Formats: sequence, structure tokens, C-alpha cells
Amino acid sequence: MFHFNPDLSSADTTPSPVPPAADKPALDDRQLAVIQRYWQAANYLCVGQIYLQDNALLQEPLKAEHIKPRLLGHWGTSAGQNFIYAHLNHLIGRENVEMLFLSGPGHGGPTLNACAWLEGTYSEVHPQISRDADGMRRFFRSFSTPGGVPSHCGPHTPNSLHEGGELGYSLMHAFGTVFDNPELVAVCVIGDGEAETCPLEGSWKSIRFLDPRKDGAVLPILHLNGYKISGPTVEARTDDADLIQLYQGRGYEPIIVAGDDLPGMHQRFAAALSDSYQRIRQLQAQARDQDLPRVGRWPMIILRSPKGWTGPIEVDGLPVSGTFRAHQVPLAGVREDPQHLALLEAWLRSYEPHSLFDDNGVPAADLDGLNPPAHLRLGAVPHANGGRLLTALDLPAFGEYSLAVPAPGQVIAEAPRKLGEFLRDVIRRNPRNFRMFSPDETNSNRLNAVFEASSRTASGPLLELDDQLAMDGRVMEVLSEHLCEGWLEGYLLTGRHGMWSTYEAFAQVVDSMVTQHAKWLQQCREFPWRKPLASLNILITSHAWRNDHNGFSHQSTGFVDNVLQRRSEVVRIYYPPDSNCLVNVFDHCLRSRNYINVVTCGKQPDFQWLDFEAALEHCSRGASIWDFASSDGGGEPDIVLACAGDVPTTEAVAASWLLQKHVPGIKVRLVNVVDLGILASPRDRPHGLDDASFEALFTRDVPVIFAFHGSTWVIHSMVHGRANEARFHVRGFSDQGTTTTPFDMVVLNDLSRYQLASEALKYVPRLRAQASDAIDLFQRKLREHHSYIREHFEDLPEIRNWHWTDDFEQPTAPPPLAKGHARGQTFTDA
Amino acid sequence: MFHFNPDLSSADTTPSPVPPAADKPALDDRQLAVIQRYWQAANYLCVGQIYLQDNALLQEPLKAEHIKPRLLGHWGTSAGQNFIYAHLNHLIGRENVEMLFLSGPGHGGPTLNACAWLEGTYSEVHPQISRDADGMRRFFRSFSTPGGVPSHCGPHTPNSLHEGGELGYSLMHAFGTVFDNPELVAVCVIGDGEAETCPLEGSWKSIRFLDPRKDGAVLPILHLNGYKISGPTVEARTDDADLIQLYQGRGYEPIIVAGDDLPGMHQRFAAALSDSYQRIRQLQAQARDQDLPRVGRWPMIILRSPKGWTGPIEVDGLPVSGTFRAHQVPLAGVREDPQHLALLEAWLRSYEPHSLFDDNGVPAADLDGLNPPAHLRLGAVPHANGGRLLTALDLPAFGEYSLAVPAPGQVIAEAPRKLGEFLRDVIRRNPRNFRMFSPDETNSNRLNAVFEASSRTASGPLLELDDQLAMDGRVMEVLSEHLCEGWLEGYLLTGRHGMWSTYEAFAQVVDSMVTQHAKWLQQCREFPWRKPLASLNILITSHAWRNDHNGFSHQSTGFVDNVLQRRSEVVRIYYPPDSNCLVNVFDHCLRSRNYINVVTCGKQPDFQWLDFEAALEHCSRGASIWDFASSDGGGEPDIVLACAGDVPTTEAVAASWLLQKHVPGIKVRLVNVVDLGILASPRDRPHGLDDASFEALFTRDVPVIFAFHGSTWVIHSMVHGRANEARFHVRGFSDQGTTTTPFDMVVLNDLSRYQLASEALKYVPRLRAQASDAIDLFQRKLREHHSYIREHFEDLPEIRNWHWTDDFEQPTAPPPLAKGHARGQTFTDA
Repeated sequence: MFHFNPDLSSADTTPSPVPPAADKPALDDRQLAVIQRYWQAANYLCVGQIYLQDNALLQEPLKAEHIKPRLLGHWGTSAGQNFIYAHLNHLIGRENVEMLFLSGPGHGGPTLNACAWLEGTYSEVHPQISRDADGMRRFFRSFSTPGGVPSHCGPHTPNSLHEGGELGYSLMHAFGTVFDNPELVAVCVIGDGEAETCPLEGSWKSIRFLDPRKDGAVLPILHLNGYKISGPTVEARTDDADLIQLYQGRGYEPIIVAGDDLPGMHQRFAAALSDSYQRIRQLQAQARDQDLPRVGRWPMIILRSPKGWTGPIEVDGLPVSGTFRAHQVPLAGVREDPQHLALLEAWLRSYEPHSLFDDNGVPAADLDGLNPPAHLRLGAVPHANGGRLLTALDLPAFGEYSLAVPAPGQVIAEAPRKLGEFLRDVIRRNPRNFRMFSPDETNSNRLNAVFEASSRTASGPLLELDDQLAMDGRVMEVLSEHLCEGWLEGYLLTGRHGMWSTYEAFAQVVDSMVTQHAKWLQQCREFPWRKPLASLNILITSHAWRNDHNGFSHQSTGFVDNVLQRRSEVVRIYYPPDSNCLVNVFDHCLRSRNYINVVTCGKQPDFQWLDFEAALEHCSRGASIWDFASSDGGGEPDIVLACAGDVPTTEAVAASWLLQKHVPGIKVRLVNVVDLGILASPRDRPHGLDDASFEALFTRDVPVIFAFHGSTWVIHSMVHGRANEARFHVRGFSDQGTTTTPFDMVVLNDLSRYQLASEALKYVPRLRAQASDAIDLFQRKLREHHSYIREHFEDLPEIRNWHWTDDFEQPTAPPPLAKGHARGQTFTDA
Repeated sequence: MFHFNPDLSSADTTPSPVPPAADKPALDDRQLAVIQRYWQAANYLCVGQIYLQDNALLQEPLKAEHIKPRLLGHWGTSAGQNFIYAHLNHLIGRENVEMLFLSGPGHGGPTLNACAWLEGTYSEVHPQISRDADGMRRFFRSFSTPGGVPSHCGPHTPNSLHEGGELGYSLMHAFGTVFDNPELVAVCVIGDGEAETCPLEGSWKSIRFLDPRKDGAVLPILHLNGYKISGPTVEARTDDADLIQLYQGRGYEPIIVAGDDLPGMHQRFAAALSDSYQRIRQLQAQARDQDLPRVGRWPMIILRSPKGWTGPIEVDGLPVSGTFRAHQVPLAGVREDPQHLALLEAWLRSYEPHSLFDDNGVPAADLDGLNPPAHLRLGAVPHANGGRLLTALDLPAFGEYSLAVPAPGQVIAEAPRKLGEFLRDVIRRNPRNFRMFSPDETNSNRLNAVFEASSRTASGPLLELDDQLAMDGRVMEVLSEHLCEGWLEGYLLTGRHGMWSTYEAFAQVVDSMVTQHAKWLQQCREFPWRKPLASLNILITSHAWRNDHNGFSHQSTGFVDNVLQRRSEVVRIYYPPDSNCLVNVFDHCLRSRNYINVVTCGKQPDFQWLDFEAALEHCSRGASIWDFASSDGGGEPDIVLACAGDVPTTEAVAASWLLQKHVPGIKVRLVNVVDLGILASPRDRPHGLDDASFEALFTRDVPVIFAFHGSTWVIHSMVHGRANEARFHVRGFSDQGTTTTPFDMVVLNDLSRYQLASEALKYVPRLRAQASDAIDLFQRKLREHHSYIREHFEDLPEIRNWHWTDDFEQPTAPPPLAKGHARGQTFTDA
């Protein structure tokens, strides 16, 4: 009555044209029986999670009070995923192989919880959820209830590798897990709802970047159960011929398993799984024996099975199993409606729980027999808790990547070049557990020294004219922020290290992905058995203030705003002002754990302020007073000029210079901030400066003009609660950009040196007389600049040539370029 | 020397297996000649934009001073797109048809500018850039210079439909333009870099949602020029057989045109274009004559041509044309290097400018002859400036969708239900120019009344058990926030109306897309010839505070934070607290122009506060004092409780009730905010309240406890600059969520009624004696609640049953549900 929907095969518009060829059944009777029983057990545990708060083993007749007062959770995807999980257990045991299970479909929580409990790994990490009747009751009660676990996979269940709440990332995560893991097979179940997302559709091409000689394999299982929420899915309604063509074109060889007949589905799926696994090993052997970077098409399975399979076929006269009505809670109002209660009891009993669990709730011995050896259980493989595999990077001495800075602002350089050399040597020293990713901007971002250590990963045949491209290249460039972020997440989640770099504006393409990763990290803090992971490092070198021809569309600083909404325990924001600070910050990021580190530092030639020693001290403090640009002699200043970000730093230092030149006697203090979080009170963010340290920098009541790289509210929010917070006058990015010379951009955004200096003078009543003339001069300069650049297409000479001078004489030429650094665009700027 | 790279055909790894069959050449000699010359002219104008600030017509030998001081812009994609544009002009003229040109490749600005100038439409909208020598000089000088235009397409050029800065959206935009435009053909050029983005990959399936009986057609031209920035692209290195399979699987029939031979490429491309066009019309005729919603595969063209085609083959001994070095500026340092200057001059002269333009810079007559009839020029078709086609919606009288609210808080309802009825009638009255989009949440979001007017759009064959699905359904559901946003953008940009609804957390999936659309709207304000568009309306009904089983991953309020970074001229944020306010706000949104309206209002059963009249007045003010929940009698209050968002409103009203119950004599004022922007000073946001109106609500110095739906900094930032801003104590969402009952969520986030009331009392020293007992009580209640829900899985009875009572007696039952509204989950909650 409950298990099979005879209408499904007609609901399925196409028969399977690719039955796996087999002379004899894939499973013998004993194997078949235990897989079927394991599936029943997992299904029972899923239904129990959704409905039961008591009588977990159905040892007495089901009553209303056994039912949770609020019915939450999702049944639709559960039985299909349980089916796959049971079969994988069989394969793992037979082949004695490490596999990962990535659950892509929405709301896959019940399955992963149920199977982890069945295999024992759930109880190992949650001892209070023991593998017995009491534990089962607590297990059911913890699902979708306060303080409990959600209807998604997530860090709470040890067989989950990722946060399953937001759809679309399972396949890119799966590929990230197998890079440099040659023996690993990551099985990735993709829901047909999820398959409609753009990130998932864009993930299939990952196979083109996989080197079968050194990387492991992904086995995608596209699970077409017909419906997303209320509506049918695109691929479920696509006929098999088109699907086969589509996936062959994507580089895969699909095996289709379709239907709801039993045991036929078991036999066909087992055969498909076994064939796929053998095919993977054959392709790998071929690649490795013959040193071939590309082999034939990779296997995948398309599983067409009913949504809510084995659940109620009909409720209140409406079809449920095999339809969209099975998505969530197929039987509602169970506490109130005795008929629904009876239906639920019949449904639960259809799985024959008393044959599956003994009176004490312990799973039967044959079920245990299907569990793989302890260390190979999907909730026990270390890759699913990658921190267990993490080894610290072998980092070169970062002092060797210092840039000579004879005096502050006396040399011009492209800040990321030295970082590129540092990363080159990180790659050399860590050839198997560090990767870099980028939407093809490694060159443009001046990190090209890394190509001395490894090339770009080729996605297809090489040509003679290719530059820095190799089949085994480790610098992964794909014009997809989603894939850069997603591959890196998968790589980190399995215990390795890495970074990616991108345009600031387009980092926002992955706002929501970064949010989900942060939520994963945040939740992991509640589970000590989740071992620390290497931090997710994002370098933003093409930022809003220097986009030249790219203009307004490329100018947005909001990525950091979004990251800052995450809890401060898991995010760090850095604005290194120059090359030596950048190397310092990055060395720190690569050593850090469990953070999302966002480092913003431009790639264009710009002033270098600190020598390596000074940078080291500055970065370890997070912020400090720059004496060379201050005139307060260590005493109380008239005004504090604060800055964070390279362009704002230049403008703030120049503003200090202008003030000292034109308003003799003014006491200016310049404070540069590298690590944004130190601004916040430790009450709000754990590593914020205590009030005394904060006031040692910013004083207690002197007005502060804060030149900031991003949105003004970031600073307002950070200093909220500090003494006299209204004295912080922030100038930042205000979405007022254009195609421009660099200085025009700062003028448009009211962040120019002239504007900062003018504003500062408003808060120095002591010097009102001189101030008035200076303000007039500064404002005249702004108008002159506006006209000049529209005529000459470059900044005023006094801007172009300006640099710090201790005597405040106007310089007539810019400082020299550091050796090997260049002005102007390269061939390959984006 | 410059035009042809003989190596390309070998660089191209595969020959074209699909040469279009043709008995005679597609073009006669005269047609061929003029297309070739048009192409030369467009190429010349592109090179000129990048390099020249003077001597635009090369009437004298090229000198260093004619060269711009900073060389910016992108050559790589230009010649290929110019080639397509020239051929399209031929087709449009021959067929007398309205077409759109959507430029997807990055940095397509030079092409669109050049071709618009050639066809005269650029000068029509920018009279100072006249179609003569002077205009050409100004045209060149405006490109990538301060105050000028960027290296992307954008609103400045009349043949651009969208902002081209961020890659990946061209194809979804193209489909959006042709929905309900049965005669329109949108030609969409997709770069092979862009083709790697996930949003682009996910867009191909749009064809499955197109109804050829009522929609127009998209002709995708996949332009494989080999490289993204520095590295090769995936599809350029995929062989033709795989590409054909891939695109056939996606529902298209590709025609491949490959090479760099001339005139062969002209003939083959013209044939491919002509065949594709004929095929489109055949398919449409078939669909329309026979009333077939699905016909055969749709044509597309794959154009393999060299990057930087017709540019320098070799520079400084390195190959350039056909390689990644052609991406941006193939010849650098032209002012400094006489050899490069000579190369540039030869390159420019290779196009034979003096044969293309007369001495006064006017294009030759034959070039004019290739331009389509004036109204069909790609920069003149009204669809490219959709505001010209916009007609106001025929809206029903919104008062007919009122919900009966006998007294504040005395009825419970699902706020979106009435909106669903309103939208149903909007669909009925506007059957050809209004669409709704959603990631399959229309039902879940309680908007299902719309299905009485139209079904979901089917993407494949229908089954008997389908619900609300039809081949010509107008409610477009696809599990992709990208496609919902992108289709709607394309639909709006061509002068129609619409909305989409989604989960709050996952709206962030399209943070960067919404940013780009806002930047388009913002820039359009500079061009009066860009006529106003209908606003982009986003309804968020599944929000952070009521996610139940979905838990932490589904809780993020940051979408609004990102939108608020855009300039206030183009964004509006609404938090209607109940059904009547929601209908009021939405009616306003559908009448508004040129905004992004974000409306957040939960779908779960909740208190209804205002009857229709009161809601109308409240929403038109944007915020008002709710007298029923206030006890200040219109005088000076002890404390102001402010709120925005439905859950915070309930908590704030309940806090007022608790305060009045437990601290007799307290003078509380409750202020509800619907339209967030009114909080800001009109100095910062144009529709902010003036200070007097603001203080009439919030007083000048009374402490304000502000219960807010989103991040606290949003409110801090909004009230920045108001009198005594430090008195605003904001409680909002702090990324501290869990799987939970509703009230547990507000407790975790410190936004519960008990917490708000406790905090309020801290600021009422007048009543310190009573306050202390009340605070103890409130804090005890919080602890009791915490334990209770973990045992009983539902809120404390006094929370469940609470509603507003004028006598402050504790209610023992909740208010009634409005008719037709339901508690509990539905089948299809996400």
C-alpha cells in the first residue's frame, strides 16, 4: 500500500534506454535483502525524525501525544538518498575504498542524520544520541526543534561535508575535495531542483580541470525525482535522449536507472554503481599507467525515482508519493486527524521496524554488516572532517619577500608582486596541498611569479602559443567566481590550504556562498570534534578606486559589508597599505584557521610606506600611529587623520602633508588601520582593542577624519560604543564612480586629500584664521583638477608628482619605481 | 600584414564540421564589399577610441601627441563583434525586422559605441558627438577618459540594452526581452569567457520556458575567440563534436562558422545568419499555425574567430592577434616608442579610413546603405530603450483587496494571501506585459491565488498529476534566483512590468546582479533620452525570523544591506507590517518607475494591525505613531519603541503591552516604520523626512529602542546626523539563528518583547522602583521560555496566546484566523 507507486513509470515520461549490461544480477539474494532492509531502516528513521517525539520504536500503538506539535522537515528527497546511501555502503565494503557522500538536494538532512545514526557515527560525535531506543527518541526529538538540528545537512552530522541550506554548490564542492586526493571517490548526489541553479549548471565543466593522474574522481548521481517544490523540474521532463546528449557533451557517460519496481531498481542501481566505480578505476589506471592527462568520458548516474518514494500514495483523495505533495510533510494535521494518525502509523509500520531494531532500539546485526569497516563509514572518513587531515603549510621565511623602502613614500611599486613571489615558494614547498584559484586574473593581479612554480591548469588541448598552461598546472583559472570559491571551499573542507583572488566588485557574485561557508565555520565551533580548517583567503587586488576604463560597473565595495554581517569569530578584514604589509598579512592568513580572511590591496603602482620591520610591527598591532606623517609630537593632536585601504592611505597622508604645509603649527596625527576588527570594542568583536589601546590611537575626544576604502557605515558600525563616537567623520565609497583617472575617483567620492584637509580644518577652531585661506586653496585645486583631467586625461602634475617630503616642498617628479615593477597597463589587464 | 593571422586555423584545433549548405554564395559581390567596408570602418573606430586623442581621421602622419597619455580599453573582442554587427545590419535591412543586439563579452564597449556612431544613433542621443570629423575626435576622446564612457556597453550607447560590466547575464536578459514580444528577435553574442560563468551556463535552459506561439526568439551567437584574459577558454578548447552534442542536448542546433579566411568567413557567416533567421521564422510559423507549444531545436551560431582579429599579428617578436595578448591594448607605450607608433599607424591605415570617411569625417554613402531603415537601426529600436514602449499597468482598485481588521491585533492572517489576489487581477488585466517569477515559491509564499489567472510556465511535457502548469503559463518558476532576476531585468528593460519573490537569505545569490541593475538605473538618470522603466520589484516573504526547520543557513538579512549601498535615487526598502500595508506598498511599487523596490513581509500567520484606511495613511506617510499601542497621550513619552518588519513589530507592540501592564504610568510611544528611507535626512536621501517631521515621530531627545528586522547598522546609518543619534538603541538580526520555534529566534537575537521591555526600562529613571521588579520578571520569563520550548517544541502558552488587550489582561487563546488562512505548514513549504 505504501511502498510503490504504480503510476510512476507512466509519470516518468521515458523508459531508460541504457540498462546496464549484466549477465547475472548485480546483487545476490542476501545482499539484496540487507540493502533493502537498510533502506527500510533509514526510511523509518527519516519519518521518525519528522513526526515522532515519543514511542520512537512503535512499541505501543501510535497516539496523538507521540506526534510533535509542529510538523517540520522534508520527506520528499529522503527515500531516494537513503537508497543511494545503502548501496554505497555495499560498494564501499566490497571495494574497501574511501568515499565521500555529498548531498546536494535541498533538505537532505533527514537522510544524512538517519544513515549516520545507523552506521554509528552520529552517536560517536553526539554521545547523548546513543544508538539505542533512548538515543533514537532523542534523535527524533532533536530534529527541527529548538536547539536541535535543521532539515539540511550541516556540520552537526559527521557524514556531511558542507552546509546544505543553499542549493547549487554540491558538485563544485565535490571536485574541490578530490583535487590532489588521487584515491578518493566523491559521490555527489545532485537534486533535480538544485540542477536548475546556475552554480550547479556551471559546475559540470569541472571535469575538464581534473587531472586523473593526480586527482581523485567525482561520481555525480543526478537524482531526478520530478519536482522542486510545487513544480516539475526541467531535467525530469527532459527525455533521456536529450539528457544523454547533454551530459556526453559535458564530458560524462550517463547510466540511467529509472523506475520504482523492486527489487529491479536495486539490481539496476547496484549494477550502475559498480560499473561506474570500475570505469573510474579503469580511467585512472589508464591515465596513470600511460601518463595521460585526458582519458575518455567519466561515468555518472541519472536516477529517476519517485519523490517521496515509499511514502503515502494518496492522502485525502490526492496523490502524494511521486508528486510535489511529497516534498515536505506528506501527512499534515496528524495530532488532530485520527485518520492521518492511522495513515502515519501504517506508513511507519510498513518498514517493519521490529525486524530492523531490537527491543532496545539497536539495529539488527545484518544492518551492521552492511556498514563499511569503521574507518570507511561515510561519517568516519577523515575527508568529511578535513581538519583531521590538516597539516600546517611549509611556509618560507616571509622576511625574504621584503621590498626595500628607504623612507616612507619614496618608492612606487605594485604591491602584489612580492606576494606573488611568496606564493610561488608556498606552491614549491607544498606541491600537494595548496592551490590558488582566480577568474583568470593571476597575471593581471601581478601575482605572475607563481607561474615560475606551476602553470595554469589546462582544461583542454595545449597550443604552442599558450602561456603558462599545463595539464598538471596548479593555478586554477576559470572565469567563474562561483567555481573559484566553490572549488576552494571543497579543497579546504578536506584539510588543505588555498586562496583565490578577484575583482572587488565581482567578489559579490559569491556573497551568498561566502555567507554559507561562514555559517558552516560558525556552527563548527559548537562541535569540538570538527577539527580546525585552514582559513578561506580571498585577495582583492582590483578594487573600486583604481578601475580606470572599467568604470562604474566595476566599482563596489560591498563584499566586505556582507562578510562583516557574519559573526566576528569567523571573519577577518585586512587593508594592507603596501607591499610589505601585504606579505605580512598574507603570511598570517595562511597560518590562521577557521576564518574567512578578506585582504584588499590594489595592484596598481602606488606608494610604499613601511619597510619590512615596520610593516611587521604595524600589522601585528593591527593599527598604529605613523609618526612620519604626524606633527603632534606624541602629544594631543588637533585632529586625527585615520585611514584604511591603500588609496585612502595615500589621500590621508597627502592631506596631512597639505595641512602641515599650508597651516603651520597644526598638530596632526595619522593613524593607519590594517586589521579592521581592532576598531570594534572587544564587547562586540573578540579581537577588538580595549578602550585604553583604542584611545591611545584615536584619543578620547579629538575629532577623527577617517578615510576609508569602503562604505562609511562600516566604520560607523565598528566604532559604535567607543567614547564620543560622533567625533568620527568617515569619508568612504559612495557608489559615485565613473571612468576616470585615479584621482578623479577620489574627488568624486569626497575622499581626496584636498577634501580631507578641508574637512579637518573645520574641526580645528584654534587655527581658524589660517584655515580659511587653506580651505579656499584646496577647493580651488579641486575645481582646477576637474577641468584639467577632462582636457588632458591624466591627473594634475602636482598630483602625479606628489610624494611625501619632510620639508613640504612641492615635488616635481614622482618617486622611482621599484625594480621589476611597471607603470601603465599590461597586455592582460582585465 | 595586419588583417589575417595565417596560424589561426591551426590554432583552432578543429575544423568546422557543419558548413552551411548553400548552392550559391550568401552574398553577392556588392553586398560582400559593403559588409567588409562597414567592418573596416567599425574596426577603425574601435582602434581610434583606444588610442587617439587627435588626428582622428589620420589626415596627417600619426605623432606621439595624437596618442592618449593613458592607453585604456579592450581590443580583443571588438573585431569579432563588429563583424557580427555588420552582418546583422545586412540581415535587418533585407528582412525589414526588429532585432536587438545584446553584447555579452566583457569589454564590448568599443564595438557598440563604434557601430552606434556609424549608424548615426550615437549622435542622435549625444548631439555633441556628431557624425563628422569633429564628432569623431570627441568620440575618441570620450572613451575611457574622465567624465567619458567605459570600456563596457552601458546606458550611454543607445544600442545597449544592459550594463555589460559584470559577465554572465546576456543570455538570460535576451530571453527576458523576447517573452511576450512575438515578433522580436534578440541576437545575443556570448563571449567564451562569459560562457564559463555559472549564470551564463544556467541560462541556456531558458529556451525550455519559451512559448513560440506568444514569445519572440533569441539567436545566441557563441563567440569563441579563444581566450578569456590570459588563459584559454574551456569551450574554445572543446572540439566541435562535443560542442554540437552539448548544445543539441540543451535544445539548440548549432551552426559552426570558423576561421579567419576572407571573404570565406563573410560568406559562411552570412549564410549561417540567414539560415538561422529562416529557421526561427519557420519554427514560429509552425508553432503558431498548428498551435504547438514546443517545436524542434532552435538555431544558434558558434563563431570561432581570432581574438583581436585584424589587429597586429606580432609585436616585439611576440604573437598578438589570435592570442591572449590581444585582449586589451595590443600595442603599449605608443607615445614613447616610435616603432610602436609606426605599427599603430600602419594598423589604422590598413582599414583605409580615407575610403570610408570623407574629408569631413562623414561615412561613405555605401556604408549608410548598409544601415537598416532608421527605425530598425540597433540603436533605434524602441526595445533597446524600453521606457519608450512602457505603458502603465491597468491596476485594479487596491482597496478591494483589503483584509477586515476589526481592531489592531485581533485577527491572524497570512499577509501575502491578499496580495496574491491583487496580483491575480493584475495578471488578468495585463495579459501581455506583466509577469511574475520565483524559484518555485509562489505557492509556499501564499501567492497561489495568481494561479486562478495563469498557471506556471511548463518547461516540458505535462502530466496528469501536475498542478497549475501550462505551456502558456505566465508565472515563471525556475529554481534559480539568477534566472528570476535576469529574466525580469530583460523583461523590464524592454518596457514591461513584473516582480519576483524569494527567500530573504537567498536573495543574496543575486546581490551583484541587483547591484549592476541599480548602476544601470543610476546612470540612466544622466541620459534623459533613456525613458523611465517600470521598477524592479522583489518580494521577500520567507524571511530570517520565521524559517523553522530551515534554520541558520536560511537566516540572513543582508540583501537589503547591499541594496542600501546603491544610491538612494534608485532604491526603496519597505517593511509592511501586515496584509493591508503589503497591498498598499505593492500597489505603489507597481506604479513606481526606475526603482529597485525591496518589500519584506513574512508569509506565516501573524497579527494584522491596521484596517485598510489606516494602512493607506500609514504607508503614504512611511512611518507613524500607533496610538493604540502608545500611552503617551500625544505628549512627551518616557521612551519610544520603534519597529520595522513584521516580527519586530509584534515584539515591539508586545513590549509596549508588557510595559503598560507591569509598569503602570509609563508613557510609551510606539512608532512603526514601513518605508525605511524616510528615516534618513533629506540631505542624504531625497525622500527622507525633514527634521521637524522626524522629531514629531521620534522626539528630539527621548531614548528610542528600535526593533529592526535586519542588521543594526542599517538603522544606525539611516539616523546618522539626526539630533542626538546616540539615543537610538537598535536591536536587530545578528546572525545568531538556529532551528527554532518563532519566538526562540527573537530571544536568541535579543529582540524579544521581554528584552525590549527590559531595555526600555533602563532608560526610564523616573520609574526605577517599579522597573526593577518588571525587569526581573521579564528575564525570568526568558529563561522559562528557553527551557519550555526545548521540552515542548512550541512557544510558552503566554506567547502563543498573547495578543493585544486594552485592559492588559493575559489572553488565554490566540485571536481568530482570517477566513481562508491557515496555521501550520503546507505541503509545499520550501
